[in-house]
Amino acid sequence: MLNNPYYSQDQHGPYKFYELGDFHLESGEILKNTQLAYAVHGSLNEAKDNAILFTIMFSGTSKNMEHYIGPGKALDPDKYCIILPNQLGAGLSTSPHNIDGAQAMSKFPEISIADDVIAQHKLLTEFFGIKELQLVTGWSMGAQQTYEWAIRYPDMVKRAAPIAGTAKCTAHDSLYVDVFSEALKSDPEWKGGEYSKPNACRVGLKRLAHVFALMGLCTEFYKKEQWQKIGFDSMQSMLSGFWEAWFQPMDPNALLVQAKKWQKGDSSKHADGNLELALKRIQAKTYVIAFEQDMFIPIEDCKNEQQYISDSELKIIPSFMGHFAMLGLFEEDFAAINGLYSELLSNDVS
Amino acid sequence: MLNNPYYSQDQHGPYKFYELGDFHLESGEILKNTQLAYAVHGSLNEAKDNAILFTIMFSGTSKNMEHYIGPGKALDPDKYCIILPNQLGAGLSTSPHNIDGAQAMSKFPEISIADDVIAQHKLLTEFFGIKELQLVTGWSMGAQQTYEWAIRYPDMVKRAAPIAGTAKCTAHDSLYVDVFSEALKSDPEWKGGEYSKPNACRVGLKRLAHVFALMGLCTEFYKKEQWQKIGFDSMQSMLSGFWEAWFQPMDPNALLVQAKKWQKGDSSKHADGNLELALKRIQAKTYVIAFEQDMFIPIEDCKNEQQYISDSELKIIPSFMGHFAMLGLFEEDFAAINGLYSELLSNDVS
Repeated sequence: MLNNPYYSQDQHGPYKFYELGDFHLESGEILKNTQLAYAVHGSLNEAKDNAILFTIMFSGTSKNMEHYIGPGKALDPDKYCIILPNQLGAGLSTSPHNIDGAQAMSKFPEISIADDVIAQHKLLTEFFGIKELQLVTGWSMGAQQTYEWAIRYPDMVKRAAPIAGTAKCTAHDSLYVDVFSEALKSDPEWKGGEYSKPNACRVGLKRLAHVFALMGLCTEFYKKEQWQKIGFDSMQSMLSGFWEAWFQPMDPNALLVQAKKWQKGDSSKHADGNLELALKRIQAKTYVIAFEQDMFIPIEDCKNEQQYISDSELKIIPSFMGHFAMLGLFEEDFAAINGLYSELLSNDVS
Repeated sequence: MLNNPYYSQDQHGPYKFYELGDFHLESGEILKNTQLAYAVHGSLNEAKDNAILFTIMFSGTSKNMEHYIGPGKALDPDKYCIILPNQLGAGLSTSPHNIDGAQAMSKFPEISIADDVIAQHKLLTEFFGIKELQLVTGWSMGAQQTYEWAIRYPDMVKRAAPIAGTAKCTAHDSLYVDVFSEALKSDPEWKGGEYSKPNACRVGLKRLAHVFALMGLCTEFYKKEQWQKIGFDSMQSMLSGFWEAWFQPMDPNALLVQAKKWQKGDSSKHADGNLELALKRIQAKTYVIAFEQDMFIPIEDCKNEQQYISDSELKIIPSFMGHFAMLGLFEEDFAAINGLYSELLSNDVS
């Protein structure tokens, strides 16, 4: 077990654990003593019908989405019980670096988006006793989970807001995942995933960070020197102070478990590979939210799926932050997303 | 000297050499015994006023642009004398791998876009005796050279067609160059540029190739499986059969000399860093040509410069080939570009 201080209550808490025990994965493997780390804001009402599920993106934790939650915001904990489950394998839940034995490090099993959603379903139904969700939402890999929820459990999801993500990973996105994964694994200390210390692969993590800098924002962000708007005085200082600082404390195996999950994400499985039919299973009132300048989840990819969802609207948010508009570093991005949450939640649904 | 068989008459000929001798570089350094490799199609007329200059992109040679030249095409060698000078340091002209001594390999001096243009100017004026050019054109780094020509020698350039490139390298483009350069240098055999064999760095070259695959086309290319249109049966077969096959035979130092040149390309120097004023120096009738889905030279970046060129038009070509539309692998891309050349050349200019 590598003691990586990044994945701690101190950094990302408070979060709790739900014990899934020996958890059967889609691959056929069993993940031993599986723990699902999750955060909760607000309380379930007596009818248990005020729950919102907020799923988490690549490299993120429940902590990173907390800015959407608070009194007076759309996701108001005085009204809703908002549950944020951390991805399996992503650092807080059972992950390559935080276990010992036959499944540790490079031997950690492959996890799928469906595995996460099934684990989350167990938490929500078996532990909380929830039967319906007012909203399922998530950004990027969180959108993948959102789609999987709305397609797998259509009766349970009243509203859905997948943000800058797809039900089926696109070919270009798959290539993107390959490129940043290769960048990470190019570290001389990588050693096939059996590095010796939590921070052994800082060179590879830095290279990965730069690929994200390249694709995560947009050309106009750089041309208009928008780094100034978020407190950096140069592109270089944002590269180190934001992108490298974001990724370098993380566990390489955890990132690669998520990367594979992202790449293989495919909710069309629910209709034998027919994406259109799978999306038609969705009963939720759905806002498909895209960021206008997103370089790896462009509007077209979101629109391509939204067209098949019966009760859906495509909502486009312009932002020079591109894919990373979701972080809400620009106040107007937060306001736009919060506004859409508010609008969607105000929709009466049967 | 590394004997890399890729850079040969056999692969890229016929081309000739112009001897520049000891060539003074913008950096202050002198490149010893400089040879400029160039190809010529057609003949100069007696008035020497039928010349076209076609400059070359990153990783390319004069051979790679030949498909635009031929009887019946806009760039007709029966009418024009078309000269294609290969970049200094790029493999055919004097380059890191094809010299011995104090400037070989990692010790090769930094070359600028201006250095290339000055070398080309010497070839055209001192060797050929050319006083005016009917057209200067080039794609990507070729566009950088085109801009430098039109700004540095405004009296000499009657028409200009910079294609998918900018007079000043943008911040995002600079980041792109950093990312693919890092990918290349991540090769365990790189050894600070002192690798032992021509093909020692195939791993790094492969990683670089994948970054180009990610950014060189566009998401719609992949979604619509356009690889089939150019003879590949899967994304994977195009990755290996096109991108890796393109880059892997090349010399890493040569690519990095070009990369730095690209990144530092800045013709605003002619007006003390004021890009607008520099572009206003251009007298040529100019078609600024952009590819609609280009991920690293997006339309906005081309438009941003075109607006300051007095006698100019922005021409946008839609293609799922993105930046690489210029290769003309799709017939309609070739037809569109050839059509614009034809249109521009038919413009009477004083």
